[in-house]
Amino acid sequence: MVGGTLRSSAEVKVPETRSEEIRVAGSTVILTLRPSGDAAPRLAIPLVHRTREPFADRWALPGGWIAADESPVDTAARTLAETTGLAPSYLEQLYAFGAVDRSPTRVISIVYWALLRQDDVIAQSAAHVAAGRAPENVEWFDVDALPALAFDHADIIEYALWRLRNKVGYSRVAHGFLPSEFTLSDLREAYEAILGRHLDPANFRRQVEAAGNLIPTDRFRTGSHRPARLYRDNTDVELAARGPLSPAETSIR
Amino acid sequence: MVGGTLRSSAEVKVPETRSEEIRVAGSTVILTLRPSGDAAPRLAIPLVHRTREPFADRWALPGGWIAADESPVDTAARTLAETTGLAPSYLEQLYAFGAVDRSPTRVISIVYWALLRQDDVIAQSAAHVAAGRAPENVEWFDVDALPALAFDHADIIEYALWRLRNKVGYSRVAHGFLPSEFTLSDLREAYEAILGRHLDPANFRRQVEAAGNLIPTDRFRTGSHRPARLYRDNTDVELAARGPLSPAETSIR
Repeated sequence: MVGGTLRSSAEVKVPETRSEEIRVAGSTVILTLRPSGDAAPRLAIPLVHRTREPFADRWALPGGWIAADESPVDTAARTLAETTGLAPSYLEQLYAFGAVDRSPTRVISIVYWALLRQDDVIAQSAAHVAAGRAPENVEWFDVDALPALAFDHADIIEYALWRLRNKVGYSRVAHGFLPSEFTLSDLREAYEAILGRHLDPANFRRQVEAAGNLIPTDRFRTGSHRPARLYRDNTDVELAARGPLSPAETSIR
Repeated sequence: MVGGTLRSSAEVKVPETRSEEIRVAGSTVILTLRPSGDAAPRLAIPLVHRTREPFADRWALPGGWIAADESPVDTAARTLAETTGLAPSYLEQLYAFGAVDRSPTRVISIVYWALLRQDDVIAQSAAHVAAGRAPENVEWFDVDALPALAFDHADIIEYALWRLRNKVGYSRVAHGFLPSEFTLSDLREAYEAILGRHLDPANFRRQVEAAGNLIPTDRFRTGSHRPARLYRDNTDVELAARGPLSPAETSIR
């Protein structure tokens, strides 16, 4: 029956072909919220302009080959640092894309997705411009106005956005876009940018307060509107459940 | 600012080292519910006894090298068929494990997890025993009584069980263990085996009926207990959200 050892003449076949023809790359979908003047902030992503074939003149996700002494998550973190000079507030493995025809040669890409804090991006961009040392060929795009993409990177970005939209439903991952102190309007606008729809402010406030993860401060943001209380995140709680992955494999950093 | 092109003398570094030293394998965590007489069914998994180094005499997840003309999901489906002779009711990519020291040589394993229907496993095992053609070196184990495992496979199984426990909270993936017709007790016992705790039958019935995915039949199971109505699944709805992955990459089959 099911419980017994199954033995017979047929062995489990393990192909002896080593998969040396397959190369392994790492790519990262890096997301932030980009302010747009008085309008609501929008999701934006950095892309690299390709100057060589294949797909010369198209745009691609930042990435590169996984080095022999590098774990996939280290490749993702390195790519992120090289592209933006920043450490992510959230980094998780998205998916290993491996369709046989996804590239002219056989490449499996282990893709991560990362969130950057809006204020980190603004500060870093200003510093880059001031120091004249930002990476060449990198440009930020709104996710709803992407240029022509190389490989299957349009599909990968679409899948990353789907994962993000799903994940905000059962985690606090949206907080990864926000600075250490923020108003409830900031938080609602982050959710609205992710979900692509308007949320009722009163309902939103009720739900967030019921979840009990926000810590109110004594400070207020003042400006053209009436003063709004600043909150901070309860950093004792992970933005999303990590699961029992070892530090070397960890999905989230 | 954030919106502008960032240009300077520093280029995004893409290492020229090709990752030929890295080989890519596929492994699959195959789960089913195993009846245990009158007691509640238990989660069980097939493992392969290793006869060669490294880790000779330990047990490993079924798997093998990804062939040059094979996508990772095809490797997973092939491994599953070779190990059990069965098609899964659910198959999803679990994680790409790539820590540098997880194997004596550098191997990245793209791991899938699969659910098998209890009745398929029983029928197939009986057929295998009758025909004497079940795979050698394969044995089923209860997940809470696993033998000494090779590589990082104990960690991988632990992560798969974590994913399964999480996923039953927001999907109908537990139905993947059940035959086409089942009682509410069968379904509750599946959840109990996954979650490792007792569920109140009346509360469970209320929740399942409220979700509205079960279709009652006119048939009843009779036996030592009072007759219990048989239900079937609403197969118009996926067991879990698939997301916008192309068929060649699809996470779920």
